Amino acid sequence: MVVNNKVDSLSYDVEAPPQGAAAAAAAAAPPPAPAHHHHAPAPVMREGAAVLEMHKVSLPEPRTAAKALRQRLAEVFFPDDPLHQFKNQSSARRFILALQYFFPIFQWGSEYNPRLLRSDLVAGLTIASLAIPQAHSSFVPPLIYSLLGSSRDLAVGPVSIASLVMGSMLREAVSPDEQPMLYLQLAFTATFFAGVFQASLGFLRLGFIVDFLSKATLTGFMGGAAIIVSLQQLKGLLGIVHFTSHMGFIDVMRSVFKRHDEWEWQTIVMGTAFLAILLLTRQISARNPKLFWISAGAPLASVIISTILSFIWKSHSISVIGILPRGVNPPSANMLTFSGSYVALTIKTGIMTGILSLTEGIAVGRTFASINNYQVDGNKEMMAIGIMNMAGSCASCYVTTGSFSRSAVNYSAGCKTALSNIVMAAAVLVTLLFLMPLFHYTPNVILSAIIITAVVGLIDVRGAAKLWKVDKLDFLACISAFLGVLLVSVQMGLAIAVGISLFKILLQVTRPNLVVKGLIPGTQSYRSVVQYREAVRVPSFLIVGVESAIYFANSMYLVERVMRYLRDEEEKALKSNQSSIRCVVLDMSAVAAIDTSGLDALSELKKVLDKRNIELVLANPVGSVTERMFNSAVGETFGSDRLFFSVAEAVAAGACKAQR
Amino acid sequence: MVVNNKVDSLSYDVEAPPQGAAAAAAAAAPPPAPAHHHHAPAPVMREGAAVLEMHKVSLPEPRTAAKALRQRLAEVFFPDDPLHQFKNQSSARRFILALQYFFPIFQWGSEYNPRLLRSDLVAGLTIASLAIPQAHSSFVPPLIYSLLGSSRDLAVGPVSIASLVMGSMLREAVSPDEQPMLYLQLAFTATFFAGVFQASLGFLRLGFIVDFLSKATLTGFMGGAAIIVSLQQLKGLLGIVHFTSHMGFIDVMRSVFKRHDEWEWQTIVMGTAFLAILLLTRQISARNPKLFWISAGAPLASVIISTILSFIWKSHSISVIGILPRGVNPPSANMLTFSGSYVALTIKTGIMTGILSLTEGIAVGRTFASINNYQVDGNKEMMAIGIMNMAGSCASCYVTTGSFSRSAVNYSAGCKTALSNIVMAAAVLVTLLFLMPLFHYTPNVILSAIIITAVVGLIDVRGAAKLWKVDKLDFLACISAFLGVLLVSVQMGLAIAVGISLFKILLQVTRPNLVVKGLIPGTQSYRSVVQYREAVRVPSFLIVGVESAIYFANSMYLVERVMRYLRDEEEKALKSNQSSIRCVVLDMSAVAAIDTSGLDALSELKKVLDKRNIELVLANPVGSVTERMFNSAVGETFGSDRLFFSVAEAVAAGACKAQR
Repeated sequence: MVVNNKVDSLSYDVEAPPQGAAAAAAAAAPPPAPAHHHHAPAPVMREGAAVLEMHKVSLPEPRTAAKALRQRLAEVFFPDDPLHQFKNQSSARRFILALQYFFPIFQWGSEYNPRLLRSDLVAGLTIASLAIPQAHSSFVPPLIYSLLGSSRDLAVGPVSIASLVMGSMLREAVSPDEQPMLYLQLAFTATFFAGVFQASLGFLRLGFIVDFLSKATLTGFMGGAAIIVSLQQLKGLLGIVHFTSHMGFIDVMRSVFKRHDEWEWQTIVMGTAFLAILLLTRQISARNPKLFWISAGAPLASVIISTILSFIWKSHSISVIGILPRGVNPPSANMLTFSGSYVALTIKTGIMTGILSLTEGIAVGRTFASINNYQVDGNKEMMAIGIMNMAGSCASCYVTTGSFSRSAVNYSAGCKTALSNIVMAAAVLVTLLFLMPLFHYTPNVILSAIIITAVVGLIDVRGAAKLWKVDKLDFLACISAFLGVLLVSVQMGLAIAVGISLFKILLQVTRPNLVVKGLIPGTQSYRSVVQYREAVRVPSFLIVGVESAIYFANSMYLVERVMRYLRDEEEKALKSNQSSIRCVVLDMSAVAAIDTSGLDALSELKKVLDKRNIELVLANPVGSVTERMFNSAVGETFGSDRLFFSVAEAVAAGACKAQR
Repeated sequence: MVVNNKVDSLSYDVEAPPQGAAAAAAAAAPPPAPAHHHHAPAPVMREGAAVLEMHKVSLPEPRTAAKALRQRLAEVFFPDDPLHQFKNQSSARRFILALQYFFPIFQWGSEYNPRLLRSDLVAGLTIASLAIPQAHSSFVPPLIYSLLGSSRDLAVGPVSIASLVMGSMLREAVSPDEQPMLYLQLAFTATFFAGVFQASLGFLRLGFIVDFLSKATLTGFMGGAAIIVSLQQLKGLLGIVHFTSHMGFIDVMRSVFKRHDEWEWQTIVMGTAFLAILLLTRQISARNPKLFWISAGAPLASVIISTILSFIWKSHSISVIGILPRGVNPPSANMLTFSGSYVALTIKTGIMTGILSLTEGIAVGRTFASINNYQVDGNKEMMAIGIMNMAGSCASCYVTTGSFSRSAVNYSAGCKTALSNIVMAAAVLVTLLFLMPLFHYTPNVILSAIIITAVVGLIDVRGAAKLWKVDKLDFLACISAFLGVLLVSVQMGLAIAVGISLFKILLQVTRPNLVVKGLIPGTQSYRSVVQYREAVRVPSFLIVGVESAIYFANSMYLVERVMRYLRDEEEKALKSNQSSIRCVVLDMSAVAAIDTSGLDALSELKKVLDKRNIELVLANPVGSVTERMFNSAVGETFGSDRLFFSVAEAVAAGACKAQR
């Protein structure tokens, strides 16, 4: 079927001011309707012109309050529509689907093959080499995650930020050196609470609160935390024995220089040498991604070499790890304490580390999912991470989550499924059972060097520079998080950054964009005259586009801003001897919602303009706004003859009225 | 000039699915350009169809970062553009304008005439009759306000809410019965701090924070406060001597019933009788607005009659006001204390009462300004109210502001300018100097009855019902404020309500509206298929309208929601044997802003869709969004051939590509 779309060219001059209104009206007239349409447009006759066709503003199908609430809640809590796949299935099929839903291992396990196994084996062994120093926490949690988790690339283990926060929060109350048993009890209990908190967030479908930590905030936070963690490693790197337990930049630096009598040159030489080597391998791998195994293997190699050196040397001035507990994770369920004076502290620590580790885990999971083009379910991830921590706290593990650096290694080592976590757990198990005594002579300085190498990669200067270029307020959030973490505390830094991010949203809502629109020649479209310099203002019309929901927080501003535009336009019209404004058209296309204060503001604006004999009409209100207008008295105030399908039709109708 | 707008009718059937894409593309073709246009559209040829004309997406004129920041700050802090009137004026004229700007009395004073004076005299005397019981605070502040204030209808004086909060906050620390002098000192100091706080808000142009108390919140807050105030008047109405100083509903009710042995039948009879009369006069005036003077005069009449009765009766069981300080306001500047242990308390009390009274004053001022069609400058009002309270605190006045009930009386008594405040102050002065002893025998129960009558009018059940009908979340904020004030505390009630209001905004941002759009037959417009049932989906296109700014808080949701729409549409297409989706069009018209997370989300969505061989294009991005896209790498990712002027052109171009 050939489409016949012959349109006679219009012979008018949009720029000639006296005829402008009529010309614009003509341009705005929509083409006649096709033969088949669903509603009855009201034709309006004009002398010497074609038939103008008006379209009604529709209301969405009426819903009961209960149904509206249900739909709203579903969108808030179930945006992923998890029950969709269960529709139209037999009950046996549904059981399998449910099993696969709760235990993703059944999903990828059913399609597993030897080719995938080889990839996962290599990847699993690679990440195991990173995991040895925190061996216990890298055994039970990865096993649980491989059953429940929905990410294929996440490598599970303790992460520095959460460990750091937990350490600093617990140390304020209990010293790990003086009361090691109590400290361990509190740490496991806090881990348990972190797990409970994470799993409940997932169960209550509150996954979206993680979204409030913006990427800008995380960039600044990571940078600050990385510097703090690196500085704290100066303890090991310089061989200082008495060191502050605080985390602030100033406390740490004071400790470093106050204790310069404790600096150990042997330690410093060894540490600096290995640090240089580790950073070099990192550089090599970064330049040539095919050589990823150099930086991946370097930590384990450094541990082995330095242990051998230290065993030969037997210097007393280089502190070593000493006796490590041998054997599989001892059960620690009996160490969880839910009474006594430390409950509040452990709950607070649990929630704080829980939210921090959750954020990192989910952000990392999402990053790799987007690279490999699959979906990660935030709420399911929360439950997986939470259950993994609850189980971990009963098996001598600290808080664990998906670690960014390990997952990156896992991904570049070619992992295909969560089986790489099982491989890693198995490798760690072997180490725990048979290889632990070998680590007796491992110097602490090597662990410090490994940690520094890992965290400096988290400082994303280029990312911060990009923020500055694109969005100054995002950069402010980033730098506040950075400085807050560095100078005050981790919690305060995060709180400030989240506060700035929320303030930014509120600012946008309080002072929304309002733009004056003009007709784009050759179209029926009205656009901002600031953005489109070719846009032509329609004489005696003021067309204002509102680019935000209308709320109590901006309703007053809206009225004042429109009145200001009106004043400016009238002054301009007076100067150029044009006709004064007779009609204000509010383009409501971008007003996604309106509340009672917003409705009152519209009525007020209409009242004020009525007194000045200026018509106020609304163009293209969306469904929910139209619904609200007709639920309140405002709909009647405007009436259907002041609600238009589009700006073009509003202008056309207004022009008609003026010519009568 | 007659406009020639002949358009041939299009012969196609929008509903026939197989030809739909082509038909839609044809319908989307804009009419040929007029002779004069400012840019060069790129014509695209299609077989057997008219020439398609494409319009470029424009960028706003480039601004430097400094200029953008300046414009942004100006919009946040100077939305009213106060310097506008000074443009192009001589310096003498500028001085007068500045004088008129800072002292509005010079503005209306220069046009004052005897006719206005008569109106203002009547109104001033009427509101003075309401002001006698709080005489001192109704003398100095109205005089200051009449100089500085920009509202013509505001009647200034102490208001119950702020007085109540101040009383309850100070009473927690100091008992007015045991340490009356200290209590007075603290009250005046708190008033001073309230004034400083208010004036600084105005000076720093932070007037907009008052906007965060929504009308819904105020409705609930007023209702709760009115009930609490009424219940506290049971002390006077029942003649109870020992009464709680707390404000909670439960404390007050416990006091009332625990002390039923102190109930005084004489007091109860007198109080109930006058209360009934006062409520009756209120009803009469409400039914017939011309009889406003009945309810306006009733309080003063009640005071006079009851005083005479009490003087004749001389009953010891009815408590009377007793000796009132005679004479003009004693200076109290020497009573302000800025040191000692109570400073924190007075600052806290000052800020709390300051913000409460400011909110009421500005809301009332704006209400009457909108009735009489003039503008009230929020920041100037803040400074006027603040200076008035700073001055008041030095002249034995508590916190004052524009009172709703008095201003209503002022307005209905026909006031024209702020002179009515001067008349009131003069009448109060005469009373203070000569008539004070007459009030010795005034029974306290009458003041209780007057206060109850005044505050029950603040309970707006109809307003709350309207909120329920129009906006359930607004109703929730209202009822939370109500119950919070009633059951917990005024501060807590307000905090909860503001929290809910902010949560509502954030919820809207976190879960923005996304709508699938279809072509409205007979137009080139695309609208939500839920709102417009006649909208026709374009086969193999998914057109999604985003109705919110894209932020870190919703960028993930956006990607997931679009993918869900895509899944649903593909399932639908599969079922009905239609062609699958080949192109996703994001209609960006309603996206007022985008941040770095939002830009990343767009790139990610594009990457995901690219892997599935589905094209992602953007239609009609606004200026600031286009600017940001081209400042980041995202603009290049999309390139100008994936940015379209409108959905119609995007669909037309997409259809062209598919037919090649």
